[in-house]
Amino acid sequence: MIDSHNTAGIPAVCRGISMYLEEIKQANDIKKIDRSELPELAEEIRDFLIEKISVTGGHLGSNLGVVELTMALHLALDLPEDKIVWDVGHQSYTHKLLTGRKEGFESLRKYGGMSGFPKRKESDCDCFDTGHSSTSISAGLGLVKARDLQQKNDVIVSVIGDGSLTGGMAYEALNNAAKLETNFIIILNDNNMSISENVGGMNRYLSSIRTAQSYLNLKEDVYNKLRAGKHGNAYVAAIRRAKSSLKHLVVPGMLFEDMGLTYLGPVDGHNIMGMVRAINDAKRFKKAVLIHVLTQKGKGYEPAQKHPARFHGAEPFFVETGLPRNPRNKANYTDIFSTVMCKLGERNENVVAITAAMPDGTGLKRFRNKYPERFFDVGIAEEHAVTFAAGLAAGGMRPIVAIYSSFLQRAYDQILHDVCIQNLPVVFAIDRAGLVGSDGETHQGIFDLSYLSSIPNMHIMAPKNKWELSDMMKFAVGFDAPIALRYPRGEAYDGLEEYRAPIEYGKAEIICEEQEIALLAVGSMVKTAVAVRELLKKEGHGVSLINARFVKPIDEELLAHLAKTHLYIVTMEENVASGGFGERVREFLSNCPHAQAQVLSIAIPDAYVEHGNVEQLKKEIGLDAESIAERIRTQVV
Amino acid sequence: MIDSHNTAGIPAVCRGISMYLEEIKQANDIKKIDRSELPELAEEIRDFLIEKISVTGGHLGSNLGVVELTMALHLALDLPEDKIVWDVGHQSYTHKLLTGRKEGFESLRKYGGMSGFPKRKESDCDCFDTGHSSTSISAGLGLVKARDLQQKNDVIVSVIGDGSLTGGMAYEALNNAAKLETNFIIILNDNNMSISENVGGMNRYLSSIRTAQSYLNLKEDVYNKLRAGKHGNAYVAAIRRAKSSLKHLVVPGMLFEDMGLTYLGPVDGHNIMGMVRAINDAKRFKKAVLIHVLTQKGKGYEPAQKHPARFHGAEPFFVETGLPRNPRNKANYTDIFSTVMCKLGERNENVVAITAAMPDGTGLKRFRNKYPERFFDVGIAEEHAVTFAAGLAAGGMRPIVAIYSSFLQRAYDQILHDVCIQNLPVVFAIDRAGLVGSDGETHQGIFDLSYLSSIPNMHIMAPKNKWELSDMMKFAVGFDAPIALRYPRGEAYDGLEEYRAPIEYGKAEIICEEQEIALLAVGSMVKTAVAVRELLKKEGHGVSLINARFVKPIDEELLAHLAKTHLYIVTMEENVASGGFGERVREFLSNCPHAQAQVLSIAIPDAYVEHGNVEQLKKEIGLDAESIAERIRTQVV
Repeated sequence: MIDSHNTAGIPAVCRGISMYLEEIKQANDIKKIDRSELPELAEEIRDFLIEKISVTGGHLGSNLGVVELTMALHLALDLPEDKIVWDVGHQSYTHKLLTGRKEGFESLRKYGGMSGFPKRKESDCDCFDTGHSSTSISAGLGLVKARDLQQKNDVIVSVIGDGSLTGGMAYEALNNAAKLETNFIIILNDNNMSISENVGGMNRYLSSIRTAQSYLNLKEDVYNKLRAGKHGNAYVAAIRRAKSSLKHLVVPGMLFEDMGLTYLGPVDGHNIMGMVRAINDAKRFKKAVLIHVLTQKGKGYEPAQKHPARFHGAEPFFVETGLPRNPRNKANYTDIFSTVMCKLGERNENVVAITAAMPDGTGLKRFRNKYPERFFDVGIAEEHAVTFAAGLAAGGMRPIVAIYSSFLQRAYDQILHDVCIQNLPVVFAIDRAGLVGSDGETHQGIFDLSYLSSIPNMHIMAPKNKWELSDMMKFAVGFDAPIALRYPRGEAYDGLEEYRAPIEYGKAEIICEEQEIALLAVGSMVKTAVAVRELLKKEGHGVSLINARFVKPIDEELLAHLAKTHLYIVTMEENVASGGFGERVREFLSNCPHAQAQVLSIAIPDAYVEHGNVEQLKKEIGLDAESIAERIRTQVV
Repeated sequence: MIDSHNTAGIPAVCRGISMYLEEIKQANDIKKIDRSELPELAEEIRDFLIEKISVTGGHLGSNLGVVELTMALHLALDLPEDKIVWDVGHQSYTHKLLTGRKEGFESLRKYGGMSGFPKRKESDCDCFDTGHSSTSISAGLGLVKARDLQQKNDVIVSVIGDGSLTGGMAYEALNNAAKLETNFIIILNDNNMSISENVGGMNRYLSSIRTAQSYLNLKEDVYNKLRAGKHGNAYVAAIRRAKSSLKHLVVPGMLFEDMGLTYLGPVDGHNIMGMVRAINDAKRFKKAVLIHVLTQKGKGYEPAQKHPARFHGAEPFFVETGLPRNPRNKANYTDIFSTVMCKLGERNENVVAITAAMPDGTGLKRFRNKYPERFFDVGIAEEHAVTFAAGLAAGGMRPIVAIYSSFLQRAYDQILHDVCIQNLPVVFAIDRAGLVGSDGETHQGIFDLSYLSSIPNMHIMAPKNKWELSDMMKFAVGFDAPIALRYPRGEAYDGLEEYRAPIEYGKAEIICEEQEIALLAVGSMVKTAVAVRELLKKEGHGVSLINARFVKPIDEELLAHLAKTHLYIVTMEENVASGGFGERVREFLSNCPHAQAQVLSIAIPDAYVEHGNVEQLKKEIGLDAESIAERIRTQVV
């Protein structure tokens, strides 16, 4: 066995040594490794993950935290008969390694390569796809009931982080799990973090358990004390009849016990055999058992421990320093949002900002630092975030709710029911709208124009470039009704700087007007439309370029004009076709007298878009300039 | 004072006596009434509600349960400065009475009349509109933060039922409320019920408090016992340092205390002055305080106590007997669903059924009685319901999730992310799709075609009549992908019995084919289309009638044919236009070669639809046969 202490700090893989990892070619191979050598395997896995992710990018901190936990699960269970549901799923890298997917890390999150999340189509050891937070207990309960109805005996485990436990549907599931009279294991992977610091009463409660060692030592004493007195046994019996009161003295995790779950823990999440024992203990209960496991995010790699948000979803980095391999030199839309939010906060003291566990990702951290009393991180709780914003607006404030497009899906009803029926002035800042790339299917922000357009009283804008994001934010904060701004992940477009006419309600912006073909592009697609226009101009076409600005309401006056003066109108949006901008435009024009133009809608086809580089994905689904120009050439002109 | 004991059982209003209620003309008038006479006012209110609702219909049980609670709130608070957020809101009738809206009960839930829910536009004493469950704590927290930022001092109270506490967003909000360092009062109106019996761990926990009187009597004894021993004070001090352990012995509601809330209670929800004291106590805390109030649903009216589900949202009834004034003699779609579910359960042992707290409303009660082990009531937890179904499907079962259209909005992300990405065979049985009538804006099921159509891998059907619902259910259970069935509230259409061609994937049904105008109707609109056709035929038009059957995918082959053989295609749907069937048809036809037909889309305009009789609402928004025929005449022909 290699002495890991002598070589600590230098990844074993860099040393070309990963002898234990080499032996793992499929599920259950880990069981062949001698118990005493498991810590060395853990170190090899950590080294492997750090090295691979430093090249491909990916989720690092969460994966480093669950190396031993995952090993313990694979030792205690028999996959694929037994099943692990990974909440969110970005922490499943060790699980992928232990189920024969080592080679996949070469292509991790690349187009056509291995997903960064569990995928049933990737392995029979992935029993349920995840991506969004707080789903694993619900899915696990479904698998449990299916198992029982089919009289099978497999063990079902849901692994959920303490961050995911701030999401309401996890609680809905716990509330149902409490009724079980059959085995179901929930592992609470408690690292005291969401992507950023965790929030709320539940977190405070878990902290109290984490720090309650002195209290635990008391428990035996108190119990004995009660029994020792004259009527001791009678008291104990009476309290026992009252069901849970004595347990409160002797059991941490009473909150879970009160809800009807059996609580085991806390258990050290870096002690493999300790966890194996806890899992084996848990298997014996004919109930839902929650094992409380304490882990450290980023464990074993100092930069990831120090900068948890940066190493949550990491870009490629240098292993030695943790610094990014490709430092950015252009601003993201998130950066612009961040800067403008501070300005808006300064100008208008009614401006308040809300994030659902993403102060870093949304860019609200600076606003938080400047205006802490007007900043609210509600945890991974999009539903609450939106209705809380509605309450703030009803109380006279101007809330800006910053939530990624795919996560805002979870608050569709709250937008429709709590904000828009009352026509409250809530601003939705929707980052990661459009294709997001390497996170894939679960994270693509390609539905927001559809789900928001269907809602009465909602207004929707999308900026063409970084200056317009700023202008639209100022417009939105002064707007007296629900309004959404959607902008994409990554580098902000800094072209078309000279086009900066003031934002007018419901009005599009004419970049240039010719005749024949009118390109009518939404947000990120304006940049693409510039390139499409160049391609078509070279071939002698007259091409107008319109920045839609508003997706709802559409600029009917301009549309009526374009439909009279052009032969073709091409709508372009980074959103699915169904319910999107194109359909809205077509519906209007079909009822518009004297409209002669044919309409071609460029949108995302009716299918999920997998992971990969955004430029490549756009080519694959025909959303790049060349594909669009070709569609215009063949279908229209 | 009238001796209420002598006249019990005969509503005072019928006796023409409501002397205390007469004095209440606006908010705070209740404070003028002598404390000793409040029970008489409570009785008058009950009598008034029973009499009025027996004529208009409306929510009875929940309102009878909170008469005293509402009175206590109005005595302890100063409205409209102080604010009450009513969760769900259907229990706000006494609140309406006490804020000068007595006359409104003549037109309760009628078109143009008073809403059955709180509405900001109706009164400045209604601070936040509600309708769906579990939103009140989030909204209340927003009002609290707005108050504090504006340095105001009003008292904010959210009133939430124990049923609503099974919804995850209530927990998200509690988790955030725990952080408060300012006053916020949450009243848990615990009647041990959702619409039907309440479920889950939280309910069991609340029950343990409700029944823990003997335990409460113990508390002093145990505390003294501990102190009395030799090292008693040391133990008590040590336990105190461990923060919460002693409280577990002496305080019920420790689960809430563990989460960081201050718990007061349980309090008798029919003791007015007891509740006034509790509310006044709660005002003093600079924290979130939960007052646990025990109420009885249907209190004071025996039929409502005996049949809580029937008197939840009651149709007009005879006060003496509680029997409906207008007994139904035709089956509802819900009845058909109920019958067919039992058959499906018999034929296929993999069929399982899920409801979110609506075993009665959805018609699943019979399935539950027949197949209890394959029936799951998850509480008011639509998100969990859908992902739980996904887990069941991944485990090999055939889940049918029965949720009303407007409530399924809350699970949009779970449908998109947990069911459809994995293409799991979950059947969504969507009752109350289309206009629902008297519940109004929050309950109209007019968005499902839009939000479901935007989701890849989803399939959507709508039956024209009761036999087709049965046929479609059988088709859906045999279908190997996500599929939704949507059908309206109320009486099932029993016309067109002779048209019962087998359901074929993606195929519409031709009822009759002529030329000129093709009416292409979705589900409930087929019945309307029959009437439209009659009107147009009388005027000499050739009118084809097509039952769309599938909204996604649409029958492209038939559409291409219709577009060649007809001059006009009229799509008809009981759904908003944006993202609906009409837009989908238009999008297809615009890319269809040789399509000559003009398309007219009949759909619900982009606005919320208020409460009222469904037939009247349809006229108002142009969805009745006469309006549609007129639109066809003027716009098309």
